[in-house]
Amino acid sequence: MVKDKSPQGEPAIVERIRGAATSAGYPAASHTGLVLGIGDDCAIFRPRAGRELLFTTDMLIEGRHFLRHTHRPADLGWKALARGLSDIAAMGGAPRFSLVSLALPEWAGQSFVDGFYKGLLLLARQTGTPLAGGDLARSVTLFCDIVVCGEVPRAGALRRDTARSGDAVYVSGALGGSAVGLARGRGPAWRRHLRPVPRLALGHFLRTRLHATAALDLSDGLSLDLHRLALASGLHAAIEAPPCFPGASLEQALHGGEDYELLFTVPPRTPVPARFERLPLTRIGTMQKGRPGVVLLAGKPLPPLGFDHFRRS
Amino acid sequence: MVKDKSPQGEPAIVERIRGAATSAGYPAASHTGLVLGIGDDCAIFRPRAGRELLFTTDMLIEGRHFLRHTHRPADLGWKALARGLSDIAAMGGAPRFSLVSLALPEWAGQSFVDGFYKGLLLLARQTGTPLAGGDLARSVTLFCDIVVCGEVPRAGALRRDTARSGDAVYVSGALGGSAVGLARGRGPAWRRHLRPVPRLALGHFLRTRLHATAALDLSDGLSLDLHRLALASGLHAAIEAPPCFPGASLEQALHGGEDYELLFTVPPRTPVPARFERLPLTRIGTMQKGRPGVVLLAGKPLPPLGFDHFRRS
Repeated sequence: MVKDKSPQGEPAIVERIRGAATSAGYPAASHTGLVLGIGDDCAIFRPRAGRELLFTTDMLIEGRHFLRHTHRPADLGWKALARGLSDIAAMGGAPRFSLVSLALPEWAGQSFVDGFYKGLLLLARQTGTPLAGGDLARSVTLFCDIVVCGEVPRAGALRRDTARSGDAVYVSGALGGSAVGLARGRGPAWRRHLRPVPRLALGHFLRTRLHATAALDLSDGLSLDLHRLALASGLHAAIEAPPCFPGASLEQALHGGEDYELLFTVPPRTPVPARFERLPLTRIGTMQKGRPGVVLLAGKPLPPLGFDHFRRS
Repeated sequence: MVKDKSPQGEPAIVERIRGAATSAGYPAASHTGLVLGIGDDCAIFRPRAGRELLFTTDMLIEGRHFLRHTHRPADLGWKALARGLSDIAAMGGAPRFSLVSLALPEWAGQSFVDGFYKGLLLLARQTGTPLAGGDLARSVTLFCDIVVCGEVPRAGALRRDTARSGDAVYVSGALGGSAVGLARGRGPAWRRHLRPVPRLALGHFLRTRLHATAALDLSDGLSLDLHRLALASGLHAAIEAPPCFPGASLEQALHGGEDYELLFTVPPRTPVPARFERLPLTRIGTMQKGRPGVVLLAGKPLPPLGFDHFRRS
C-alpha cells in the first residue's frame, strides 16, 4: 500500500471489503443460499433441491486484458464480474455468488482497492450476486481471477454442443462495439468496452421461453466463438454479415472480442421476436451438416480469427 | 509456447489438459456430482440433497509463493491443489471438484504445462477431486488461482468462529517443517515444503468423531492462524510450545507458514487419541475468556508474526 502510505495489513483490507460487500443496498447473501461469506477458510453455500450449479472462472491481467493508465479501478471491478456473469447468462443461469482473487502490485493502493470493489459491487447489486470470498496477495503486475456460480434447473443449462442441423443462428445486439471502443478510447463504444452488460435476462428468456438448442457468449469474436459452437455440436455454420455496432467495420464485427452479446441457436420454426427488452435479436444463418467447426460467410470459409491468447499471429 | 517451439493455440492446450484429466485412473467426474467438465462456458455440478458446499480460492504467484528456478512444474501443480484441499480439510469437507486458472509467461512452454498438470492430477487422483475447468491466459509472470469445492452435511462445516471458553487447543503433526525446508532447499523438510499433504481424513475425523468446536489449517503460521481463530471466536488462547519438526527452531514452529497441519479445538473432556493414522495430535493449550485474538505462549503475549502479504515489516 505504498502509494497510499497506508500501513494496513491483510485483515484490515479484508474488513474493508467485507464492509463494502455487506452495506445497505447489497443483496442479502442468504437470499441466494450463501450461508457463510468472507472471513473463514471457505465460503459455505446451501444449494436448493432439484437445481444444478454452473461455475466459470475468468482472469483479468494487467498488460494483457487492460492497461493501467486507461482503465479506472471501478471499470476493472465491473468488467471482472461482468465477464463471469456473461458465461452464466450464456448457459441460461441465475447468478448465486462470486469469489474474487486479487494480486496487487505496489501501485495499487487503498484507493485502487476501494475503486475496484466499488465497480464490482455496483454490478453485484444490480444482478443480485453476493461476493462470497476470495484471496488477496502481492504481485508485480495486477492480476484478478473471478469465479461466478450460477443456478439452473436440473439438466436445464444451455450448452454449446447441442445445436442441431437446420437450427437458425442468432446474435443479440450489434457486434464490434468493444473493438471500436478499444481503437478510439472514448465515446459510447469505449464505454461499452469498459462496462459490458451481461445478458442475464436474455439468457433466462432463451432457456425458458425460446428453448434455445445451444448458446455461447461472444467473448473472443463471432468468427472464433461460432467456430467453437459448430465444432462442439459437430456441424458447420452458414451465415451472412452480422449487425455491426455504429462505426464498426465488418472485420471488427466478425473478429472483435469482448462484445459479450449472446450467440444462440433455435429450431428453424421457432418464432423469435425482433427484440428482447429493446435488444435486437438478429438471425444471421443456419447450422448445417458438414465439416465440424467450419463457418461459411456468404458461402466463403471464415477463418476463426478471434482472440486466442496462445496463437502466434 | 516459444520455449517448446510449439505453434499450438489455446484449443490444443485445453485438449491436452482435458485428455490428461480424464485418463485412466482419474476419478470419474460423475461420482462426485460433476455433470459437465472442461470445455463449455461453465462447468455444471449437481449437488446432493441435504448437503452444503464449501468454496475456497488460493493463488500461487511466481516470485511471491515460489521461485521459477527452485520449484519444478509438478511440485507447483501439486501445491496449487494441496493449498485448496487443505482449506476443505480444515472445515471437515470432502472434495468435489477444482477449477484452475493459469496465466503462463513465455518461459512456461508445453513441458511446463504438462508437468504442472501431472503434479496437480496426481493429487487429484489421490483425493478424488476431478478437474472441472478453469481459464488460460498469457502473462509476464506465472500466476495460478485454484478454486476447490468441497461438501459437508447441512450445518456440519467446522468453522473458526465457534471455539468456546475452556476448549482444548490441538495441532496435528509437527510445525516449522516447511520453513526449515525453504531455508535448506533440500532433504525431507524441503520435500515437505514442496508437497504438503492436505489433512482431509483428519478433517473428516474431527467433524464426525471428535465433534471439534472449531478448526483452521496452518497456512500462515501458528501465531497468526491461532490469533485468527481466537479473534473470530471472541476468546484468547493460552498455549505452550508446539511440537517442532526435526531441525525446526521454536521460532520456525510458531511463525513459519505453509505447514498445512490442522489447528482445532475440542470440549475439555473430549478424549483425543495421541495419533490419527500415525499423525500425532498434540494438545498445546486452552481457549479462555479474555481479550479476543490474544495468544499467550507460556504466559507471555505471542505477536501474530505469521505471513501477511500486506504487512510492512
